Amino acid sequence: MSTINTHSFSHDPRNLRVLAFDVFGTVVDWFDSVRTEVNRRMDVDAAAFASDWRAGYAPAIAAVTRGDLDWTLIDDLHRMILDDLLSQYGVTMTEPDRYSLNRIWHFLDPWPDSAAGLRALRPAYTLCTLSNGNLGLLTDLVRHSDLAFDCLLSAEIFRKYKPDPETYFGVARTFDVSPSQVMLVAAHHNDLAAARECGLMTAYIERPEEFGPHAIKDVSPKPDNDFHARDLLHLAEQLTHFRR
Amino acid sequence: MSTINTHSFSHDPRNLRVLAFDVFGTVVDWFDSVRTEVNRRMDVDAAAFASDWRAGYAPAIAAVTRGDLDWTLIDDLHRMILDDLLSQYGVTMTEPDRYSLNRIWHFLDPWPDSAAGLRALRPAYTLCTLSNGNLGLLTDLVRHSDLAFDCLLSAEIFRKYKPDPETYFGVARTFDVSPSQVMLVAAHHNDLAAARECGLMTAYIERPEEFGPHAIKDVSPKPDNDFHARDLLHLAEQLTHFRR
Repeated sequence: MSTINTHSFSHDPRNLRVLAFDVFGTVVDWFDSVRTEVNRRMDVDAAAFASDWRAGYAPAIAAVTRGDLDWTLIDDLHRMILDDLLSQYGVTMTEPDRYSLNRIWHFLDPWPDSAAGLRALRPAYTLCTLSNGNLGLLTDLVRHSDLAFDCLLSAEIFRKYKPDPETYFGVARTFDVSPSQVMLVAAHHNDLAAARECGLMTAYIERPEEFGPHAIKDVSPKPDNDFHARDLLHLAEQLTHFRR
Repeated sequence: MSTINTHSFSHDPRNLRVLAFDVFGTVVDWFDSVRTEVNRRMDVDAAAFASDWRAGYAPAIAAVTRGDLDWTLIDDLHRMILDDLLSQYGVTMTEPDRYSLNRIWHFLDPWPDSAAGLRALRPAYTLCTLSNGNLGLLTDLVRHSDLAFDCLLSAEIFRKYKPDPETYFGVARTFDVSPSQVMLVAAHHNDLAAARECGLMTAYIERPEEFGPHAIKDVSPKPDNDFHARDLLHLAEQLTHFRR
């Protein structure tokens, strides 16, 4: 029922069925949420602490993917990185406080357009996450901001982290559609490139302040993406031209 | 982070965090939806056909659990049962028509109280499914009836079918809570009994017409369940007394 042929359709937006969303940075603003919470709890450079916390993420994921670390959920990776950072910054903190600070990743605020953008897209497309965040974390995020996803898909389900092809193919298999009927929506070109390799369509979302207002990201378009949008409402507007 | 101790809390509804819902029969009315669709397409006793289709489900699940059948999604089990039934009833049907008839399980209508009941429960509890239905099927069901689940959990994720303990423990692990902070909501005493064995709280929902108006089910209360409700709105009403 779910044999995957990455070339069974060309990339035609009229055939799109499923939009799969990256979450950290694309739907929610991790930098400002984490910075604010760190600032509330500790006397450190909160912006630097937030950036350092996030910077530990990619190497941790890579360690799991290489097999240097057993399969570990993001909640636990975030906590390992936090413990290291607290040592580095010379901060002492109780176990319950560490647990509760680590939970800030469950309650990141959305970008201003995220909830409305998802509501605008939902009538025409099945909306799912495709996030390295674990299901418990994603569930808290959608409850926190009333994000209208139909289904939460996570690396936790596929037991592979993005950009492993199994995650992108996994979306198509879950919904019994061709990869070309799925579009990854993300603010990161490496994620989009890996999805494209698996036959998915791709939409780039500009999030110039993902790393904070003092580290503006280059968000210029790349021609390989099928869509380029300022935000989710702008993506919804562009897609209305292709609805059948 | 997620060590499970089934006896770490007593059953106190004030500690409840997560409501996990059985879907077929509890949230959606499979009998009438399937009967109506069969009636629309074939000249057979549609009520008998619907009942027979559903009756093939438990043995198919049991065959997977015993290992007589490799891991198989419900979509494919429903299709195997359908193919057998079409032979038995002497009905010829094309492949595309079989595929499309099998999809009726993705578009089952809800009971009249289901959507409103979930909306009433959602502010106070994390709401998830715990269904043997696959994620693609559950996603179509929630879109079809605007069912306000926060997260879809399925046997597909745990690769075990209910009543395997891993499915009930899996809910608690996913949300990093104790089993006693999870309540299974179901219209089936065997499902509830298996959940209770794993330390979950249980709520029985009366669905006297699950098997149709001519096969009224005994829905009398069993004392082992923590709650007994006429429908989801009645459950929401009972739970308001325990909100913190």
